[in-house]
Amino acid sequence: MGANTFGSRFTLTSFGESHGTALGVVIDGCPAGVSFDEMILTKELERRRPGHHGSGQIVSGRQEADQAEILSGIFEGKTLGTPIAMIVRNQDARSQDYTQIKQQSRAGHADDMWKQKFGHSDHRGGGRSSGRETVSRVMAGAVAQMMLKQVCAPMKVIGYASQIGPLTLTAEEKAQVINKDIDSFQARFPSKNDQAVADLLKKAQEEGDSHGGVAEILITNPPAFLGQPVFHKLKSDLAQAFLSVGATNGFELGLGFESSSIKGTDFHGTREQSQYGGIRGGISTGENILLRVSFKPTSSILDVAKKGRHDPCIVTRAIPVLEAMTYLVLADHYLWSRTDRI
Amino acid sequence: MGANTFGSRFTLTSFGESHGTALGVVIDGCPAGVSFDEMILTKELERRRPGHHGSGQIVSGRQEADQAEILSGIFEGKTLGTPIAMIVRNQDARSQDYTQIKQQSRAGHADDMWKQKFGHSDHRGGGRSSGRETVSRVMAGAVAQMMLKQVCAPMKVIGYASQIGPLTLTAEEKAQVINKDIDSFQARFPSKNDQAVADLLKKAQEEGDSHGGVAEILITNPPAFLGQPVFHKLKSDLAQAFLSVGATNGFELGLGFESSSIKGTDFHGTREQSQYGGIRGGISTGENILLRVSFKPTSSILDVAKKGRHDPCIVTRAIPVLEAMTYLVLADHYLWSRTDRI
Amino acid sequence: MGANTFGSRFTLTSFGESHGTALGVVIDGCPAGVSFDEMILTKELERRRPGHHGSGQIVSGRQEADQAEILSGIFEGKTLGTPIAMIVRNQDARSQDYTQIKQQSRAGHADDMWKQKFGHSDHRGGGRSSGRETVSRVMAGAVAQMMLKQVCAPMKVIGYASQIGPLTLTAEEKAQVINKDIDSFQARFPSKNDQAVADLLKKAQEEGDSHGGVAEILITNPPAFLGQPVFHKLKSDLAQAFLSVGATNGFELGLGFESSSIKGTDFHGTREQSQYGGIRGGISTGENILLRVSFKPTSSILDVAKKGRHDPCIVTRAIPVLEAMTYLVLADHYLWSRTDRI
Amino acid sequence: MGANTFGSRFTLTSFGESHGTALGVVIDGCPAGVSFDEMILTKELERRRPGHHGSGQIVSGRQEADQAEILSGIFEGKTLGTPIAMIVRNQDARSQDYTQIKQQSRAGHADDMWKQKFGHSDHRGGGRSSGRETVSRVMAGAVAQMMLKQVCAPMKVIGYASQIGPLTLTAEEKAQVINKDIDSFQARFPSKNDQAVADLLKKAQEEGDSHGGVAEILITNPPAFLGQPVFHKLKSDLAQAFLSVGATNGFELGLGFESSSIKGTDFHGTREQSQYGGIRGGISTGENILLRVSFKPTSSILDVAKKGRHDPCIVTRAIPVLEAMTYLVLADHYLWSRTDRI
Repeated sequence: MGANTFGSRFTLTSFGESHGTALGVVIDGCPAGVSFDEMILTKELERRRPGHHGSGQIVSGRQEADQAEILSGIFEGKTLGTPIAMIVRNQDARSQDYTQIKQQSRAGHADDMWKQKFGHSDHRGGGRSSGRETVSRVMAGAVAQMMLKQVCAPMKVIGYASQIGPLTLTAEEKAQVINKDIDSFQARFPSKNDQAVADLLKKAQEEGDSHGGVAEILITNPPAFLGQPVFHKLKSDLAQAFLSVGATNGFELGLGFESSSIKGTDFHGTREQSQYGGIRGGISTGENILLRVSFKPTSSILDVAKKGRHDPCIVTRAIPVLEAMTYLVLADHYLWSRTDRI
Repeated sequence: MGANTFGSRFTLTSFGESHGTALGVVIDGCPAGVSFDEMILTKELERRRPGHHGSGQIVSGRQEADQAEILSGIFEGKTLGTPIAMIVRNQDARSQDYTQIKQQSRAGHADDMWKQKFGHSDHRGGGRSSGRETVSRVMAGAVAQMMLKQVCAPMKVIGYASQIGPLTLTAEEKAQVINKDIDSFQARFPSKNDQAVADLLKKAQEEGDSHGGVAEILITNPPAFLGQPVFHKLKSDLAQAFLSVGATNGFELGLGFESSSIKGTDFHGTREQSQYGGIRGGISTGENILLRVSFKPTSSILDVAKKGRHDPCIVTRAIPVLEAMTYLVLADHYLWSRTDRI
Repeated sequence: MGANTFGSRFTLTSFGESHGTALGVVIDGCPAGVSFDEMILTKELERRRPGHHGSGQIVSGRQEADQAEILSGIFEGKTLGTPIAMIVRNQDARSQDYTQIKQQSRAGHADDMWKQKFGHSDHRGGGRSSGRETVSRVMAGAVAQMMLKQVCAPMKVIGYASQIGPLTLTAEEKAQVINKDIDSFQARFPSKNDQAVADLLKKAQEEGDSHGGVAEILITNPPAFLGQPVFHKLKSDLAQAFLSVGATNGFELGLGFESSSIKGTDFHGTREQSQYGGIRGGISTGENILLRVSFKPTSSILDVAKKGRHDPCIVTRAIPVLEAMTYLVLADHYLWSRTDRI
Repeated sequence: MGANTFGSRFTLTSFGESHGTALGVVIDGCPAGVSFDEMILTKELERRRPGHHGSGQIVSGRQEADQAEILSGIFEGKTLGTPIAMIVRNQDARSQDYTQIKQQSRAGHADDMWKQKFGHSDHRGGGRSSGRETVSRVMAGAVAQMMLKQVCAPMKVIGYASQIGPLTLTAEEKAQVINKDIDSFQARFPSKNDQAVADLLKKAQEEGDSHGGVAEILITNPPAFLGQPVFHKLKSDLAQAFLSVGATNGFELGLGFESSSIKGTDFHGTREQSQYGGIRGGISTGENILLRVSFKPTSSILDVAKKGRHDPCIVTRAIPVLEAMTYLVLADHYLWSRTDRI
């Protein structure tokens, strides 16, 4: 299997350098007959784009157009069962910004590692270690979302920031997430502290600083019995999926690390089941699934080439990407579950 | 790919029910010419066994003999490049303990989920959702360890408990881990609080209670440049590997969730690099790698069949399993890296 | 993927050296709820065994007992959806016969190649290049057969020799194959020339000579629409499966090479469709599938270690193996087809 | 694994419908540092194109421009170790020719099967069952060729027609193949009967008829020890590769079916080794490899939409495709062999 392919039944192969000709993805294994809703694709790409909503001023200034072109796999509004290829061409490349990088390393960036590993790398804007690679994932995730909509209509995947730097959602704010329009908050942080977060990030950007944070993915009404023992438990594949996103360094299911200091009789002995996060024995129970992902502070602050253009916090932008990865894992396991029983 | 296969180049396929005939594993992709050191295999199986060291009294009373039988792939003390199959027969099955389970579900256990998913399950002792399945992983991990010893001799994989219930290692104790004989501590918790932990666990066992905890895996002197962009970053594959172990619900690399509240200038602006956990851009830097895994409190406290036999805390026993998974991921990526450059 | 794994949904991993401890196989991906019919397993192993039917005197004298032991995956007579592991221990190893081989190469045998490739090999009896490896395939094929019986009951897979050395079935004999008890013929050559073939092979064995031949696999009443475009056409996967069997050097679907000299108007312009061999565009049509496999003459005639024990013709013995590979490909594609449409 | 992905280490994923927006391919696993020679890519696409050489008048009239656009993976003339994506846009689609097909089935075409299997299909020009899909393979094969040139410089892959309808190469002509400029022959049939073949095909086209044939692939100076036991023998993977090409229905290695009537002492007892076809025990010996593929007569003669545009014989056009598949299998196994030994 290639390093750029993800999934076992619903698979995607991602390609493209951030300052190359195009980013793209090929989906293989999507069944025939899925209604292709281009609105979903457009919306998700728009949501991934920096500065797409109120948060324009607090994220990286790069303004990619990100117009998807569908190359194959769709005919008369439905999937054909053949590979679905989609690309987005790179326009605002500004690769001149990056010419000086060839000489000096971008400290804290993955570029160094890739360069030394492969002996040859595209120094312009991080090549494939750039966050721009996630365009491919968002396109694929949109198709997975279309498929799941058709077979698991009530399911919703809701991503939001639960922490940005020092600011965290309160318990009541978390409980209300399901009723909020997350994208209406400048940093996808659904809180009365919305403006405080915006101010925090603006200040960081001005000062050449950055913040880490935590994103949460809540899956409501998921299908039960997704996940395959033993190496492809639903939690394992989700952990892999999320940890494949740049700048991530932590993953939790349900209570996660917090559960390590709770006594078993307290943990298990309640009527409530949310401590399990909706997955038992690696398999979805049908209850809501709750996942958390931590991000380190953006490293591009160290980057001479990005003066004033860096993202002061990656979490807001990463949310549509994490949602995409969630849809992809669920789509893969949904198809996989079709062969559980004879 | 099958659900019970792990890895891309150095692959293992695990099989066996906890109360079936045998547990086993087939390794495919191990190169020819690896010296097979049966001592390592025996030692690791022994380390995985409940009650193997001082901790006898604080872990599950089941006393499996766990004698590995090598069925193929080894000849005259060296690997042949052919599949290496190994099995351990089940002896102390006590499946009579479990006959009542057929009628009543084991609340909190994965058994329910598996039963409903597949429509047919081996109710005896959890079948494949049992911790006993990890015997297969430990056998495979031992072979991965042998291979890595031959090519990355200075590398060490050190697992230990950093938290058990309310008790955590101090900063100084953590810093000393590398100089300690972890297995000499009753709960693999290398601390002056060794006895306090033992008392805590004994009390929990007597009271039918349990504790969660955190295990850490420290890899010293790892090879640099392991990990493949973009979906098989070293951190992604490690996260998948660890979250495939039962009762896990969290993963961290380096500072993990803690980094979410540290400013970028503080996080990145030091001489020290340990905050990154030894992996940058998804690729090992050659620095020490630090990984953390959280475990929920054992659910077997709820289990009528396990009166007085349950593990009051799974962390101690899980450590050899996490080490095995670490070796497996590293072995896979070591072989993979051989084709990075022409 | 490992080299010893076959299939995408219904996968098997084969292991074992011919003179090692055991041969075995792990099946992963077989759905739960398949009735496990041990009679089929026993019968197929028996059919693979040299000298199992009247042909005792004309095939290799090695008398393996070939008792399968089921290690996992079956409970109360049904598959669990977990990996099914089965082994056969080696008994009549006679490895002393092979000790001299360590010094002198077995000309014409694959041993040389494997030895040089891997730098280390099990010289005893060919190790994994031995025909004995096919025990694993036959065990897995038996399980595939059980699964298909449950979902495609009318289907039959009928293998027979259509040519042995200079002797070939007549057109009428071929047309009658479906009504014959193939195993009642000494060399699975369903012809009035049964005795002539037996005499031919006996003579070859006495003279230290051997013959090649052709096996045909006829699949009656196969499910339609099996096969996946473009690299996993049913014909491609069957070709791979058959050419993975030792001593094979040719494959045909339907008319095969003969069609190369027939004009298109003649080839396509008939009511009859058998020229296509039951597969169009790589997908099964539901019509009978006809496949042919050629075998070179046994090379073990050159083998000092096998004085008087060599098979004078491999075709007869290979038939249960080819049938097993056929079942495996069909089972894999049957499961795969479950995700063709949403 | 997806149905449109081929290979294990050097993998390609093919996409595109014949009358969709574009055909394309993503190569994953090509090492960094391979010199990208665009001339090879252009030349191979040109060689695949109908009517590219003298044979213009005897193959399908469709004149695709087939300009490859490289989307990723190449930087400053070398591969990056990242996925290499390439597309060719469809121009001369003439899909109006095909509108009537929606109503009436194209007898003898794979379209019917695909339509019924998936419940939805692109009826225009065969969609993905069209020969046009092979553009993707030829692009990927060109990159495999570049890589192999760098590491196995002396190797050559030479494809040619050895039979077209009733006309076959003589033994002397075959022996001279290595010294001929195959593309200078109108139908890639390197014979004094070049003109007779051209006349035969012209006549068939005029009469709405077609011919089958046989292509041979000769690999001179291949690396030794390529191929993996037991399911990925070099011959197995080549058989799968070739049988994945449309209209193929037979495969032979070395003497193939002819060997079935040769006595073992004659077959094995010569100084000459060419009867083995350069592969023993599934592994390349370093000797020349000879492979043969049979093709049924073109079915498009039955196709109302292709009046006067059908290929009277597919063999000539298929040769660059078979060569591409050969390079791909060799590249995959070359990389695989890097992990044979520790």
